[in-house]
Amino acid sequence: MSVSAIAGGITAAEGFRAAGVSAGIKASGALDVTLIVADRPASVAAVFTTNQVQAAPVLVSREHIAASGGTARAVIVNSGCANACTGAQGLTTTRATVAAVADLVGCPVEQVLVSSTGVIGVHLPVDKVINGANAAFAALSRDGQTAARGIMTTDTGPKEFAVRVDTPAGAFHVGGIAKGAGMIEPMMATMLAFVTTDAAVAPALLARALGEVTGRTFNAITVDGECSTNDTFVALASGRSGVAIDEGSYGALVEGLEAVARALALAIVRGGEGATKLVAVHVTGPDSDSDAMRAAKTIANSLLVKTAIHGADPNWGRLVSASGRSGARFVLEHARVQVGPIVLFTNGQPFDDQAPAAAAYLRQSNLDVHVDLGTGGAGHAVAWTCDLSAEYVRINGEYRT
Amino acid sequence: MSVSAIAGGITAAEGFRAAGVSAGIKASGALDVTLIVADRPASVAAVFTTNQVQAAPVLVSREHIAASGGTARAVIVNSGCANACTGAQGLTTTRATVAAVADLVGCPVEQVLVSSTGVIGVHLPVDKVINGANAAFAALSRDGQTAARGIMTTDTGPKEFAVRVDTPAGAFHVGGIAKGAGMIEPMMATMLAFVTTDAAVAPALLARALGEVTGRTFNAITVDGECSTNDTFVALASGRSGVAIDEGSYGALVEGLEAVARALALAIVRGGEGATKLVAVHVTGPDSDSDAMRAAKTIANSLLVKTAIHGADPNWGRLVSASGRSGARFVLEHARVQVGPIVLFTNGQPFDDQAPAAAAYLRQSNLDVHVDLGTGGAGHAVAWTCDLSAEYVRINGEYRT
Repeated sequence: MSVSAIAGGITAAEGFRAAGVSAGIKASGALDVTLIVADRPASVAAVFTTNQVQAAPVLVSREHIAASGGTARAVIVNSGCANACTGAQGLTTTRATVAAVADLVGCPVEQVLVSSTGVIGVHLPVDKVINGANAAFAALSRDGQTAARGIMTTDTGPKEFAVRVDTPAGAFHVGGIAKGAGMIEPMMATMLAFVTTDAAVAPALLARALGEVTGRTFNAITVDGECSTNDTFVALASGRSGVAIDEGSYGALVEGLEAVARALALAIVRGGEGATKLVAVHVTGPDSDSDAMRAAKTIANSLLVKTAIHGADPNWGRLVSASGRSGARFVLEHARVQVGPIVLFTNGQPFDDQAPAAAAYLRQSNLDVHVDLGTGGAGHAVAWTCDLSAEYVRINGEYRT
Repeated sequence: MSVSAIAGGITAAEGFRAAGVSAGIKASGALDVTLIVADRPASVAAVFTTNQVQAAPVLVSREHIAASGGTARAVIVNSGCANACTGAQGLTTTRATVAAVADLVGCPVEQVLVSSTGVIGVHLPVDKVINGANAAFAALSRDGQTAARGIMTTDTGPKEFAVRVDTPAGAFHVGGIAKGAGMIEPMMATMLAFVTTDAAVAPALLARALGEVTGRTFNAITVDGECSTNDTFVALASGRSGVAIDEGSYGALVEGLEAVARALALAIVRGGEGATKLVAVHVTGPDSDSDAMRAAKTIANSLLVKTAIHGADPNWGRLVSASGRSGARFVLEHARVQVGPIVLFTNGQPFDDQAPAAAAYLRQSNLDVHVDLGTGGAGHAVAWTCDLSAEYVRINGEYRT
């Protein structure tokens, strides 16, 4: 079995068409409605924000996945307005949108999913979205490039990625698009990702793979520690490759999905507002992976760690202090702190003569930081974060003023 | 019973003398050793950092409070070096320091407490600290002003506060000093506070009051969500006022301690590096105060909230989103968001016409933000935070470069 990167995104897998159009929701006239359509009912699985405040499209999509038994024909997405905190009117708009798409595609309404991203607390103009859906339906194609642009808000560019997975039973494809840069946009909300595959997967197995992959990709990234009201990750499987996924080939599905989800997740961190560096935070030592992730996330969200990395300051004391407050067990005497290949602290002993080499390493834009908690367990985790720059503060403090 | 602010700090209560001197630990020549001495053994209680990484002086002070049964004659403090992550040598330095002070004061070693603050992972020069202790002992006085300066690191100024508490049984005094601005100083660690009173209080009752007050003051502030390796809050009671605290007058002790601790805690937030605004985050609605504090802390640590406040952006969506992810129950339909007197969101309805008035309010430097979680309970909490400015990033990213 092998996984290779290929060109394309949401339509790299057989059985899907997509398009993004401009529907006038964004004042700028940029693309703001994306429609993804499966030629036949596809298996679908999704994970949504855990924020207690959930936008209307999140509520409706959850409901539809349950009602359809995990099959879908279409996903309609708008950017420029999150349709969150918009009460009964917001829900009415969302239901009208999915009904219109179901008519276009010719499928039951519960086979249509829906996402919105943009400003919170502003009403979504229902006519514009429905006109956009009509235009996108007319423009559907096997070239999905406009689809990646139609879901952007202040992303610095479109995010798409695809792979071919070769297995003994044949090849299948996984491709996807994503948007977001943390919840870094004022009043915006935030991360959306859509992935398709032409493997044949039952909805329950697809949901299991999605859950597993999400924990190591989208749930392992942070830009600013904020969890939005609209976060959504949807996977659709058309089966068109003829490769059927069962318990024996489940690993191939996970590898393919994970390769695409990781690439999209890292693109989100790399494009985080104000970010100049992508940092992989590796933690080892705990008995469980979940404790390792807890420590990795605490380090990844530490303002002192993020500012030190921004300034290329090999400040291992901040890594030790963040590790010590994470809730995971930490034994200072056996702990080790490493940036790239350079050990800065181990067995209770600092190596301050390594500071210049470490500072030089930290001036690069792709970094690895490794903390061993000194607890001798086999648990490990990787979280990805970016540095914190004055530009982040400027963007988020001055956006509306 | 009444509580009134008075002049002074750590020596405002009868029975204490203090001094701060320059011992050459700081390269700048600024004051860096402070000694506080009680004329006779005082009741003592203390709370320390919950970080699993604990500096040598924290370990020794914990041990001494247990061994002395809650009595102390002296507290020796140095700034400029945290003596954290310094292994066996660090512990030896700390033990030599307290032994020297016990000799000077003429008391058992376990009646001496010790604190350090400054750079992590650097050895504290034991001769300088002991010379400093000798000089400070010679300089002890009832004017404690130098004591407040001897514990500073990058604080913008000394922090001291004192009150007189009038009770039916007579008046007693509570005064204190503190340092810190969050764990915002590169490689530094961080918050120290020392409070004295001339009330007569048994150690166990003092410890109970300290625990109660800490939760509503020092544990209710945040600058950057970091918990350092050296955080310490010590209270000493001399009994010299003749006012004895029992269950009946316990409330007066708590009020006096809380007034001083709150003033010192707010001085820490107001002086947070890069901070231009002090923000009180009020949360109501949960059944328990602890859930209210959880939501208040989530809001107070949100980068998006802190940058919005910096930019005077009345961005209620960020307050709602942070509340929704705090873990406390949140009911959007009944929630209310208010900045100062201005309601921005209630019963699912935004009041965007209030935005200009809210922006004007947010341009002030002392702010109140109130979120009701819409859950109808009687729990409430206040957390204090500051805004996040580009200056914070500059200071913490560029300190050592």
